[in-house]
Amino acid sequence: MRLIIRSGDESAMQEWRAHFRVYAPDLEIVGWRDKVDPASIDYALVWAPEPGRLATFPNLKLIISAGAGVDHIVADPAWPRHLPVARMVTPRTETEMAEFVLTSALMLTRDLKRAIDQQARRHWELYDSLRVAADVRVGIMGLGHLGIAAARLLSRVGFPVSGWSRGASALPDGLPSYAGQAQFGEFLAGADLLVCLLPATDATRGILNRDTFAQLPRGASLINAGRGAHLVTQDLLDALDDGHLHQAVLDVFDPEPLPPESALWAHPGIIITPHCAAIPDRRERARHTAWLIAANERGEALPNIYDPARGY
Amino acid sequence: MRLIIRSGDESAMQEWRAHFRVYAPDLEIVGWRDKVDPASIDYALVWAPEPGRLATFPNLKLIISAGAGVDHIVADPAWPRHLPVARMVTPRTETEMAEFVLTSALMLTRDLKRAIDQQARRHWELYDSLRVAADVRVGIMGLGHLGIAAARLLSRVGFPVSGWSRGASALPDGLPSYAGQAQFGEFLAGADLLVCLLPATDATRGILNRDTFAQLPRGASLINAGRGAHLVTQDLLDALDDGHLHQAVLDVFDPEPLPPESALWAHPGIIITPHCAAIPDRRERARHTAWLIAANERGEALPNIYDPARGY
Repeated sequence: MRLIIRSGDESAMQEWRAHFRVYAPDLEIVGWRDKVDPASIDYALVWAPEPGRLATFPNLKLIISAGAGVDHIVADPAWPRHLPVARMVTPRTETEMAEFVLTSALMLTRDLKRAIDQQARRHWELYDSLRVAADVRVGIMGLGHLGIAAARLLSRVGFPVSGWSRGASALPDGLPSYAGQAQFGEFLAGADLLVCLLPATDATRGILNRDTFAQLPRGASLINAGRGAHLVTQDLLDALDDGHLHQAVLDVFDPEPLPPESALWAHPGIIITPHCAAIPDRRERARHTAWLIAANERGEALPNIYDPARGY
Repeated sequence: MRLIIRSGDESAMQEWRAHFRVYAPDLEIVGWRDKVDPASIDYALVWAPEPGRLATFPNLKLIISAGAGVDHIVADPAWPRHLPVARMVTPRTETEMAEFVLTSALMLTRDLKRAIDQQARRHWELYDSLRVAADVRVGIMGLGHLGIAAARLLSRVGFPVSGWSRGASALPDGLPSYAGQAQFGEFLAGADLLVCLLPATDATRGILNRDTFAQLPRGASLINAGRGAHLVTQDLLDALDDGHLHQAVLDVFDPEPLPPESALWAHPGIIITPHCAAIPDRRERARHTAWLIAANERGEALPNIYDPARGY
């Protein structure tokens, strides 16, 4: 059985091979640039494959995204629509994302950006007063595995948490949930800290815009760990500069890498992280891929399969 | 009944008066510089009173520290040793300190200092791999109310937590606890992240030194939210520069404010916060002080009273 991989550079391929020797010793690993018979490829583990290439594998059984999103695959007009696409959502991914959101939420609650900027200027100035988690109502957009894991962790620490999704998904543990456009305003009005964990779809593109921000309480903050395309950058800068929003932590951008000339880098209200919220290492992804392939060969139903109707 | 206050400047006195009107309307509030009969003072709420002054109040019943520590009071050679000194440890203080330690621990676990420095340079570089809370063994020095609150919160988030104290204090919930000099080495050997919440006493001065750091696992990090005097600054810089320690979050310094010329400000492995880990606001402290005075007048035992034998 053959797995073709497009994720990382040449040195990454050596690492992939080493991990798959442990987790799937009988699997033959093929690099994206290797000369092989396209008909011999059974599985593909890919990140942003060039348009048209996946369609050249006539016997492909399953496409495995190297990340939690699939937008980089279904952007290919010729992607093989008859095939399932598995999203890379592992238990470790959920923990990493939940802890990223928690870290960001605590930094915003604590106004850590102020300490960071003071340190850069060698400036000592006491804080007037502090908020604690219980003072900050967190609203999470996107209630898939990642959103639910984040909601659970933040709630355990003491943040009042609510959730919103486009469809009828809900948070567990009796946490308040809102759904659809009709309840979006009510959800936003109760969020001192808005967290975006939505998938990238046509329906969610640009959802973090001036209309959305205007419905948040004055002084609210934002965490975007979904996709860069969710955010209308100028609308965020305007909302921060007129004081309606307080601060933002941004992990995702459009485009990436964030260009050096972007106004986001130097804004005093923004903390930037380089798309590192949840990156299962290659060992974890190899282990999960081996498990997906084995489960598929046994004819079992696979978790986190892309649903074109929902868009994720 | 009269309460004399030395904490904050003149504008702070207005705020204190407003809060005490709510929480203790019958209490007469006197400023530190006000001309009053020293014999008329029943209670004192103070931060770093000048030496000798407390001894001039012959009818004082209780000294209330404006912060969690009392070192700024007992440093006075003439402090009235027959009087109880109450430490300002409120439920809110415990929450603030626990959340500060959690925020710092997550930032260190995530290597956030790297993202902070990259942002300052408008530089985008992906992280190789991520640690999560479960990967980082946290060792907490100091098992009073604050240490126990921090241990509980970090444990709830998934950090493996152990604790150490000079005496025989222990952590609740079955968390591993070490005591005294004899078990200090064993405690340090199992701490990937050392958290100092010790009180400032003669026995703990300089405890964060090269010998202590050498017993931590290579790559360990440090959070100091105790007192500046716990840390031998040059020993920390040496341990960071030779790679034995990875990073540190420092909230307390000796002296404060941290002077602009300190080497700590610009070190890439250090995050500096301006003694803001736990600062109950004046409303909270007025409420707690009013409660302490009322309880003392009823003859009740008071919590968190300074014990000279323990040194805190």
